[in-house]
Amino acid sequence: MQSGVDTSAPVYSKNGAAVREQTVSSGLNQSKGSSMPKKNPVSIQSINPKVLNAEYAVRGEIVIRAQALAEELKSNPGSHPFDEIIYCNIGNPQSLGQKPITFFREVVALCDHPSLLDKPETHALFSSDAISRASRIINKIPGQTTGAYSHSQGVTVCRDDIAAGIAARDGYPANPEDIFVTDGASPGVHMMMQLLLSSEKDGILCPIPQYPLYSASIALHGGTLVPYYLNENSGWGLELNELKKRLQEAHDAGTTVRALVVINPGNPTGQVLSEENQQDIVNFCKDEGLVLLADEVYQENIYAEGKTFNSFKKVARSMGLEDKDIVIVSFQSVSKGYYGECGRRGGYMEVTGLPKDVKDQLYKLASVNLCSNVSGQILVSLVMNPPKPGDSSYEQFARERDSILSSLARRAKVLTEAMNKLEGVSCNAAEGAMYVFPRLYLPKKAQIAAGEAGMKADVFYTRRLLDSTGIVMVPGSGFGQVCATSLKKMAISHTLYEELI
Amino acid sequence: MQSGVDTSAPVYSKNGAAVREQTVSSGLNQSKGSSMPKKNPVSIQSINPKVLNAEYAVRGEIVIRAQALAEELKSNPGSHPFDEIIYCNIGNPQSLGQKPITFFREVVALCDHPSLLDKPETHALFSSDAISRASRIINKIPGQTTGAYSHSQGVTVCRDDIAAGIAARDGYPANPEDIFVTDGASPGVHMMMQLLLSSEKDGILCPIPQYPLYSASIALHGGTLVPYYLNENSGWGLELNELKKRLQEAHDAGTTVRALVVINPGNPTGQVLSEENQQDIVNFCKDEGLVLLADEVYQENIYAEGKTFNSFKKVARSMGLEDKDIVIVSFQSVSKGYYGECGRRGGYMEVTGLPKDVKDQLYKLASVNLCSNVSGQILVSLVMNPPKPGDSSYEQFARERDSILSSLARRAKVLTEAMNKLEGVSCNAAEGAMYVFPRLYLPKKAQIAAGEAGMKADVFYTRRLLDSTGIVMVPGSGFGQVCATSLKKMAISHTLYEELI
Repeated sequence: MQSGVDTSAPVYSKNGAAVREQTVSSGLNQSKGSSMPKKNPVSIQSINPKVLNAEYAVRGEIVIRAQALAEELKSNPGSHPFDEIIYCNIGNPQSLGQKPITFFREVVALCDHPSLLDKPETHALFSSDAISRASRIINKIPGQTTGAYSHSQGVTVCRDDIAAGIAARDGYPANPEDIFVTDGASPGVHMMMQLLLSSEKDGILCPIPQYPLYSASIALHGGTLVPYYLNENSGWGLELNELKKRLQEAHDAGTTVRALVVINPGNPTGQVLSEENQQDIVNFCKDEGLVLLADEVYQENIYAEGKTFNSFKKVARSMGLEDKDIVIVSFQSVSKGYYGECGRRGGYMEVTGLPKDVKDQLYKLASVNLCSNVSGQILVSLVMNPPKPGDSSYEQFARERDSILSSLARRAKVLTEAMNKLEGVSCNAAEGAMYVFPRLYLPKKAQIAAGEAGMKADVFYTRRLLDSTGIVMVPGSGFGQVCATSLKKMAISHTLYEELI
Repeated sequence: MQSGVDTSAPVYSKNGAAVREQTVSSGLNQSKGSSMPKKNPVSIQSINPKVLNAEYAVRGEIVIRAQALAEELKSNPGSHPFDEIIYCNIGNPQSLGQKPITFFREVVALCDHPSLLDKPETHALFSSDAISRASRIINKIPGQTTGAYSHSQGVTVCRDDIAAGIAARDGYPANPEDIFVTDGASPGVHMMMQLLLSSEKDGILCPIPQYPLYSASIALHGGTLVPYYLNENSGWGLELNELKKRLQEAHDAGTTVRALVVINPGNPTGQVLSEENQQDIVNFCKDEGLVLLADEVYQENIYAEGKTFNSFKKVARSMGLEDKDIVIVSFQSVSKGYYGECGRRGGYMEVTGLPKDVKDQLYKLASVNLCSNVSGQILVSLVMNPPKPGDSSYEQFARERDSILSSLARRAKVLTEAMNKLEGVSCNAAEGAMYVFPRLYLPKKAQIAAGEAGMKADVFYTRRLLDSTGIVMVPGSGFGQVCATSLKKMAISHTLYEELI
């Protein structure tokens, strides 16, 4: 990375010597001697061990190495057998060439610079419904600006639009008071973990393989991850008996399980849950008093024939369950779907069934961070309320949306088929989300070489892949995937559809 | 708050009865009886006590009451002796009518919708240097979009510009690798507390009165706030002997102090530290091995004759101290200064002197949240690199900046004088920042009435003020200010200059 400043400039000037004298004379240890506290400068030994324990493989050692290789390619072209790094470690579509949806960006730009709304030239540059949408939003924001702190749960007009979008999606009402708008989905997950986890005696049931945000957040907040394993042989099936078994084991180990995390569509595994399966999960949480943390950020990314997305709240309501019966938290983000607006950090969580006094505590947590970025708040309100047939932007919007989704679906199919044609590789179909999670059977020699290099075999393979091709993938172990009884079975994964084809 | 949906719509439909049967038959407790884990639904007793203990008065009970009053005024105009709520509880200038700086918003809007950059009509709507700045930034962002996750420390071009701005401000080089771009300053503070605090045995020296972000973050991360008191009688002076005394007391109580928080210019107290005072503080941190957490978000808000802002890093470098001598973290934000872009959530921390292995852990913490919002990253790079003389926007930029700063300075003076003219009120001059922190001497009857209402006298006064005028202020106790030996001395405070005059 280059520096924006002249690092050859002198750093230590201005009577350094005189100052050093002063340093000595004012030194506390000198003036008071051994009765004073000992120095305890910050070191790897002194910092919070919870931070040391947290791991986040999708931005871990392989990615850090990839960034170093990218710098080497920049400073010394031709220094590697490839010309560019291809980041398939995380769902970041726009970094790989996906274009933003025009309507969304028009509205966001107009809200950022509202004086455009009064100028005739603007009509030559922006669609008329983008102008009217931006006017409506900005006029409803207190202060008519994106530059003021909003209510800590988000601007009212954005929460109203999000709630309306949820109601239209599910056929059941949604309450703006239940919406917490956040900088992407991750801060919402952290807030819930912070709220629910008091100590390592508190556990969270988490799928394995899982998106490592969950293991990292649980570790950072000092709780215990209670794993339940998705069944690769049944297309990453989520089986109720597995949940019951793991809950019982945790109970016997003295862990109080507070919540169940379900990622649907699955990340990194791509499966889409059936409504029956979801009903069993809802009943399980209701009967066991578990908060259902529903990661639904891939709700628009469904490709398999006959599969549809049902929010857990919709499923619970269709079962006749209400707030008093079950606590459901649904996470949504502008980073995924067809919009792929990762860098805008927009998202929300819909929190239903939380007792009033606990919800007040959640509000307090939100208020300590003041509010999420208002531009992202506007974007998530647009994502939940896109142009409708008849709006002047609708045709272009639908064209852009459909071409992105059909391309993702095509690539999911092509990539899975290609994986399954490779010797020693098997891969479940990606019914949804943005990734494939293939299993590789490595030859004995590779496993021995990995052992000699002191690496897990999947890390060894992923690193070799990076060094020889510039392709960045994440070892399956980074998602907690077990290598079963031997290293023969091993998942390399999280292959973003973008690129590779 | 109105709902965006029809809440009269039926919530419970679709074979609820059949489902209830299913609920019973699949009930785990029924199926396995008492050997199964007991239900532990989330309740105020079951959640993280650290969350319960955290307080954040600037968005606390008074503000929540104000929001309720605002709703009453909306639904029932004339229901209170005032027509609007005037929020003076937090520095939120644009919510009170301050206009954003045009150049900043032009660049942000162009980066949001880069296709504008190629259109001739754009030149009729945007200044030419805004267009060239936006082109330069967007072309240097990988993917040429604000919609991709960036490096977890921030986009390289933004960190380069921030580092260049710091170097120009201080006269000492800054390294882009030391910059962590964040969603406002608050997430940086949380990250440092999370990194430094392992248990209640770890302490942070914090000024009293303080911006309650610090007490809240320390409480949430399970550490101990070690208070040091600013001397109101010497204009909120920060005295070295007080620091030494409190450090010794903490040491004797078995607390290991990890860091010292200094807010300069002061929030809520408005004092600006002298360079000599800063040198003493730097030596103190160096000698005691304390991380210096320097809240410098009001660096552009200085009004007192002859006072100037010196960053702690500049002071340390001018003393000849380098990375190996002291760890300094400087927080900056787009929310304050003359820009007041609170809702954009842009900020950074410059972290110098941290050992490499510890810095890697800080990077990991940043990576778990992926990145801060890229639009805010761009804005903070602009704030640190505004238009320069000769740029086509410079005259308008300078005019807008100077009118905001001179207005803030005027209001600081007028408000302080007005406070001091009131019977039973005394108020230190506001040398900088955005607040005054007056002291009120309440009559005995008021103190008795407060006691009878079961409230702290300052809370009682602040609430009465809200109910009778609609003005929202924060009780001094919300900043940890002691009411001395009796309730006679009491600070009501955090009066934002905006409004009231």
